[in-house]
Amino acid sequence: MDCSGKEPIIDSASVTTSKKGAKKAEAKAKKEAEKARKAAQREAAANVSNVAASEDTAKENYGPLTNSIKLTAKPIHLRDISENHVGSIVKLRAWIQNSRSQGAKMVFVELREEGAFTIQGVVATNPKGTISKQMVKWIGGLKLESFVQIEAEIKKPLEPVKSCKVSEFELNLSKVYLVAAAPEMLGLGLAVANRAVGKLEDEDNIEAGLEGIHYNEKSPKDCTKVGLILSIDMDIAGGIPLASLSTHLNNPAMHKRAPVSQAIADIRVAVEDLFCEYLRAHRFKRFHPPSLISAASEGGANVFRMSYFDKEAFLAQSPQFYKQFEIAGGRKRVFCVGPVFRAENSNTPRHMTEFIGLDLEMEIEEHYNEVVDILEGVLLHIFKGLSANYREEIELVRSVYPSEEFLLPEPGKVVRLTFAEAQAILRVEGPDEFKDVSDDEDMSTAQEKALGALVRKKFNTDFYVLDKFPIAARPFYTMPDPDNPAITNAYDFMMRGQEILSGGQRIHLPDELEASIRSKGLDPNQPGIKEYVDVFKSVGVPPHGGGGIGLDRVVAWYLNLPSVHLVCDYPRTPKRLNP
Amino acid sequence: MDCSGKEPIIDSASVTTSKKGAKKAEAKAKKEAEKARKAAQREAAANVSNVAASEDTAKENYGPLTNSIKLTAKPIHLRDISENHVGSIVKLRAWIQNSRSQGAKMVFVELREEGAFTIQGVVATNPKGTISKQMVKWIGGLKLESFVQIEAEIKKPLEPVKSCKVSEFELNLSKVYLVAAAPEMLGLGLAVANRAVGKLEDEDNIEAGLEGIHYNEKSPKDCTKVGLILSIDMDIAGGIPLASLSTHLNNPAMHKRAPVSQAIADIRVAVEDLFCEYLRAHRFKRFHPPSLISAASEGGANVFRMSYFDKEAFLAQSPQFYKQFEIAGGRKRVFCVGPVFRAENSNTPRHMTEFIGLDLEMEIEEHYNEVVDILEGVLLHIFKGLSANYREEIELVRSVYPSEEFLLPEPGKVVRLTFAEAQAILRVEGPDEFKDVSDDEDMSTAQEKALGALVRKKFNTDFYVLDKFPIAARPFYTMPDPDNPAITNAYDFMMRGQEILSGGQRIHLPDELEASIRSKGLDPNQPGIKEYVDVFKSVGVPPHGGGGIGLDRVVAWYLNLPSVHLVCDYPRTPKRLNP
Repeated sequence: MDCSGKEPIIDSASVTTSKKGAKKAEAKAKKEAEKARKAAQREAAANVSNVAASEDTAKENYGPLTNSIKLTAKPIHLRDISENHVGSIVKLRAWIQNSRSQGAKMVFVELREEGAFTIQGVVATNPKGTISKQMVKWIGGLKLESFVQIEAEIKKPLEPVKSCKVSEFELNLSKVYLVAAAPEMLGLGLAVANRAVGKLEDEDNIEAGLEGIHYNEKSPKDCTKVGLILSIDMDIAGGIPLASLSTHLNNPAMHKRAPVSQAIADIRVAVEDLFCEYLRAHRFKRFHPPSLISAASEGGANVFRMSYFDKEAFLAQSPQFYKQFEIAGGRKRVFCVGPVFRAENSNTPRHMTEFIGLDLEMEIEEHYNEVVDILEGVLLHIFKGLSANYREEIELVRSVYPSEEFLLPEPGKVVRLTFAEAQAILRVEGPDEFKDVSDDEDMSTAQEKALGALVRKKFNTDFYVLDKFPIAARPFYTMPDPDNPAITNAYDFMMRGQEILSGGQRIHLPDELEASIRSKGLDPNQPGIKEYVDVFKSVGVPPHGGGGIGLDRVVAWYLNLPSVHLVCDYPRTPKRLNP
Repeated sequence: MDCSGKEPIIDSASVTTSKKGAKKAEAKAKKEAEKARKAAQREAAANVSNVAASEDTAKENYGPLTNSIKLTAKPIHLRDISENHVGSIVKLRAWIQNSRSQGAKMVFVELREEGAFTIQGVVATNPKGTISKQMVKWIGGLKLESFVQIEAEIKKPLEPVKSCKVSEFELNLSKVYLVAAAPEMLGLGLAVANRAVGKLEDEDNIEAGLEGIHYNEKSPKDCTKVGLILSIDMDIAGGIPLASLSTHLNNPAMHKRAPVSQAIADIRVAVEDLFCEYLRAHRFKRFHPPSLISAASEGGANVFRMSYFDKEAFLAQSPQFYKQFEIAGGRKRVFCVGPVFRAENSNTPRHMTEFIGLDLEMEIEEHYNEVVDILEGVLLHIFKGLSANYREEIELVRSVYPSEEFLLPEPGKVVRLTFAEAQAILRVEGPDEFKDVSDDEDMSTAQEKALGALVRKKFNTDFYVLDKFPIAARPFYTMPDPDNPAITNAYDFMMRGQEILSGGQRIHLPDELEASIRSKGLDPNQPGIKEYVDVFKSVGVPPHGGGGIGLDRVVAWYLNLPSVHLVCDYPRTPKRLNP
């Protein structure tokens, strides 16, 4: 059997990414949803009396799951179904992603398991009476995103079920038990959750009064009202509406159930794993820096502070000092992955108050280019790994958030520009506003983005290195260029014109370190800094350098997403501490 | 050439673990160190005038490293030296672990690289004059734990150099440059750093006035006074003294350079990697829970709180809620590794205010034993991985902290005792004080340890599970046993009688969850809890369970170390926020 005439529930081709249409659509959806909800409640009430009206020959085969129900069929997962399984009776737990009744005797349910795996299930009354009209009605009335346990026979449909990922098979359901019910109305429907976000910032969303809209799940034309499932003609508003980022994040379970969210999360995990894999292969050892520290060590601004028994404690802004302590402690190469904290009131799609840093530090044997080589190596390893093994996830994300392919340099030919060279390009080839940029001051975000576009045009790459930053733009522990004290052995790495990595060679001799601290107007004896300098006085420490990568930025800019808040599992901003 | 007559600098056989002897030894050491330091200073002053006295034919071949010095020999690492290299000229960067002059014409230096790799280096004057008396003297005067770059020929010694890990080769040094000098006196010498800690608690140590003692590096009998290297007759005090845990932690670079510290750190990394490896192979997906949360969600006590822009924020005590949100969000199985925080004023060797949790959560298909099986599986995978691939590190740690082999159950036969069975064993077979322990109250640490000893005797295992904890001993989100509401589907895992894991099945239905919250005297609508319950109301959530493992405890109890503070890279306690 087949219901492929119906619209696919998640059809990336029909995504409405227009922000203009979204607001109108959301308002429309709210109204329609309210109307439909009332209709559904009436129908639900009617169902109860219908069920009671006749004897039910199938009553053992459906209903709420209880402890006494034990299905003995072989368990299966959707990802594993193959031709060999056709004809087998299996059991499965899954979410009801959609359902559609065909009169009183048949209902189609779309079942979802583990992210994007979906399959069509069919329930139809039979002469034996093991499936009754009451059972069909009860299943048709189950709320979307309820979790059920089923028993079914695996069948071949007459035609592939285009709307389902597992399109070559379908399930003839014989038993359906409700494990956990979804509510009457979802705070965010799956179809909307799988669209691009409409608005980014929380405050915009709250202003627009769009919080808490209840979206409908279904494409309108092919749907009949079934139980509590609503029908809204989205075409009127130009398609399924877009929900704001706030609505997504305030409905974490539904936001995360969207295949696009799971694809982004899978890519994020891959970036972290590829980072660790490369570094382990290059003899880096993992360690864990502390989050709680005794002083606001790196300058003092933008640090969270708290009462700590009879003292005060701070949250680390980076693992910088601790990576260096590991080198002082005899490790040749170290890396760490963990949260870092910035009490910075920056409300941009690039900033979070807590984010996962991918950090490394290593001994330098001859020249700090050894560190740049490793950092280039690990990022290229990440990009290649994604491209080789996450093509499906990348395409899924692109179907929702369109983007051009991330341009990689030819092997061994990563573009390394000095800061001065980059500024010269901006002055000569950039927009008028950058005609007078200085070699001695840090770049603005606008300069970075303009440079990114120029580099893409000139060098055909979205990934490049800016080296030799001016000393004014770097922290006190940065090693100056031995040939030019105005610049440093420090670098940023850029993706699509945005910074994803900052690093450099560090000063390893205590006298030079103290002089640098003083030159930045700090006191080498102040709390937090003194303990740091003392480590370099306590032993001989080899030359070393490293860098820190923002995990969410790498993913966001690789996929050209509008915000890092779509990448982080639980983004934290000045305005958001929930969920 | 050979100086194998000398005592090995790090000789695990001669470790003094007696705490009684340590204090006396430390006091003695302090006195002797002071005397020797003065002698060394006199000698250093004499060296300077000697060097000036004659022309130096080797002056290009030693001295501080400058930018103009470039060694062109092939770089090598000690771990890679093999027979093929004999006769090769190589370059190497390393720490001076020890040195010993033989008259004015020869000096032996022990060089260390990357943890425990050491090799003997020889410098001797030659007729060509490329090594001068001045050079020999300068090298002999380099402070221990200075970092040098050398050029050398790889040779076979006449006899293996027993005191060095790379005993089959030695280096004939031709050039020695100082990259980074160590101070006149080390805050903690390597030999002492590689001993067991003498005292555990900070306050004990401060009371005893043992902070800041300067230890000597050398075994007395075979040492000549050389430059600033001191000689103390340790035999008088019964061997090399033990430093307190505070002295270790206050000298992080030296504490970490000790081979025993590096072995513990390597084992810790292995535990984490084995955890992740097993879970990835079982289709668990990594995620990162936030550290910053909006409310003290799990009861409210022992939570760090801080000002967060115009609000208040708290540090997460566990990733519990977020693991469950991931399950609600459609992940079948998740894990996370990251810091968790406890504002608990517990000053014991088991507690820290910040520690790394290894956490997992998974859908339950039939029974929560599925979760117990996975948790047993991951821990057995860790134990087997350590035993198979970290034998050398384990033996090194045992040479400093002696312990009996960690007893593992036969495959598939992990002992699972119910809480009631465990209490019955304690009542019947335990010490008198436990004759009346109740099945309804949680165990004390003393009970746990007594039980651990009894289980070891009865079942020949140091690893076991306590299941079915009483409801009073578990948090509100714990699933009660469906057959007995006084107990729960929750468990602890034990190693050598100490808890390393706590977990259970969670309540997945919002009504039951709210009832449980109320039964614990909490309000389902209070901040932090409401947002949690709302997730279970927002969608159907499958049954699930999981557990959290304390990384440092697994390592500490596996190795039978006296404190988790010896395992954590940078332990945090109510009294310690540094380094």
